[in-house]
Amino acid sequence: MNAMFQARLAAAAAAVEAALDSELAFEPKPGEPARPRRLLEAMRYATLGGGKRLRAFLVIETARALGRSDAGPVRAAAAIECLHAYSLVHDDLPAMDDDDLRRGRPTAHKAFDEATAILAGDALQTAAFEILADPATDSNAETRAALCASLARAAGAAGMVGGQALDLAAETAETPLSTGAIALLQAMKTGALLRFSVEAGARLGGASAAAAEALSTYGAVIGAAFQIADDLLDAEGDTATLGKRAGKDAGRHKGTLVAALGIDGARRKLADLVAEAKAAVDAARLGEAGDALKATAEFVAARKS
Amino acid sequence: MNAMFQARLAAAAAAVEAALDSELAFEPKPGEPARPRRLLEAMRYATLGGGKRLRAFLVIETARALGRSDAGPVRAAAAIECLHAYSLVHDDLPAMDDDDLRRGRPTAHKAFDEATAILAGDALQTAAFEILADPATDSNAETRAALCASLARAAGAAGMVGGQALDLAAETAETPLSTGAIALLQAMKTGALLRFSVEAGARLGGASAAAAEALSTYGAVIGAAFQIADDLLDAEGDTATLGKRAGKDAGRHKGTLVAALGIDGARRKLADLVAEAKAAVDAARLGEAGDALKATAEFVAARKS
Repeated sequence: MNAMFQARLAAAAAAVEAALDSELAFEPKPGEPARPRRLLEAMRYATLGGGKRLRAFLVIETARALGRSDAGPVRAAAAIECLHAYSLVHDDLPAMDDDDLRRGRPTAHKAFDEATAILAGDALQTAAFEILADPATDSNAETRAALCASLARAAGAAGMVGGQALDLAAETAETPLSTGAIALLQAMKTGALLRFSVEAGARLGGASAAAAEALSTYGAVIGAAFQIADDLLDAEGDTATLGKRAGKDAGRHKGTLVAALGIDGARRKLADLVAEAKAAVDAARLGEAGDALKATAEFVAARKS
Repeated sequence: MNAMFQARLAAAAAAVEAALDSELAFEPKPGEPARPRRLLEAMRYATLGGGKRLRAFLVIETARALGRSDAGPVRAAAAIECLHAYSLVHDDLPAMDDDDLRRGRPTAHKAFDEATAILAGDALQTAAFEILADPATDSNAETRAALCASLARAAGAAGMVGGQALDLAAETAETPLSTGAIALLQAMKTGALLRFSVEAGARLGGASAAAAEALSTYGAVIGAAFQIADDLLDAEGDTATLGKRAGKDAGRHKGTLVAALGIDGARRKLADLVAEAKAAVDAARLGEAGDALKATAEFVAARKS
């Protein structure tokens, strides 16, 4: 991973962190009641100070590759990070994956309580749409409305939440999922939001129809690569490096492509996806501005945590 | 309550029911994966076939009073009912109010399971924004984006979810809430969404700035009246009529204005609010078209369940 890429990744993470800190400030917004302190603390706990911010980076970097680098994409990135954080808080709940540890810290319902975690997740989902719909994100209302509609499709019952429902059902199913069913589940559960991140950047950057289509393909491929890399980490990693419980997929008979293809097969698939992602960037005709998106594909495949 | 009003209430409920049935259809939307069956069944269970649809009626009737009666306000009404249904599903969870009964039926986590109820609630919130952001709701993107932004403010940490957090905190607080604190809690928890319902109707109906302001006041007053009527019902009603557990507020030391003002004091306050709501309708200068909104104020105050 070259130094330029690492610097951009860090810069995007810092920018989105500042935007989130501002959106989730204790100071009430003009004309609004104060948000209850403990609820807001739980929202901040779940959202700030953690993670690679890959989704944020995809928004910001895609928009930048198209020539846009103002506050708009950073705000959209913050919205997606709120949505992602909400999904983690709810997935960790006792009734769901029942996890105590996330990024090396207690999960939100452990650090606060279950009711606060449910409500903080709920409010973080709302915040994502509030940020996207705000004129500060883009002066064009068509763009804002389209971002809200697309995020809703990516996050709802036909996307992220639907994927989580399929994942929970798979745990208690009598027969293992087919490779195709696993790929669909993962495309919904994690792929949809990663793809939306790229599509949001493309929309905010004013991509042509052809470039938008190529970038959408790139986003879908990145989503698939991310999930295989995640499954490989779970199969090979240890809890200390991951900051969350390792080996839990195998322990709970979750359907993963690593289980279906084997570790070597999954690694080969991952390499194919990296090549496919780079080809999609070429198809978007971004020239050198697309190099960071290609590097992102390698980063996603090579990540260690 | 006159027959014309009852007919309109029933017609609005039927229209929004049909819109919800269509939005939550088992048939996948074009280009989208199928929503997992059990998740969708839980979403339908929580949303269809129940309730007075007061929020839906306020959207539809406000838009109609301004001369608009196409499918747009019905879609916005369906969005608000999805948002409302999500809040009920999550509020009923064991970690929250821990209720087994809602509208005379088992609550969603009893009829399905807790994980499915959490996810169904999550997906219903998403669906609300998806419906509002869809061009079928309004051809003007400014209107769609503004509806998304306003719903987010009404539903989030400074609105509905914040109110629920304050309500949970009040249960374990050592001292009872002040009358002012109760009013703020209720304005956030139930008032914000009722007010948004009226404001959405005003926006979709193309209200002038002056009419929009008067109608916003009307919405806020309706919200306050609704909550006092609800507290009176809880204090005086029985479980069979309500379809949910009666007397639970007093049993759990929840802050209500009935506890603070007494039953007679609360009834007087309710009568004042009805008068105030009617005055706000007059201020909106809708002529006879506003009569149904005035009747709604009486309906809200007089309801028996």
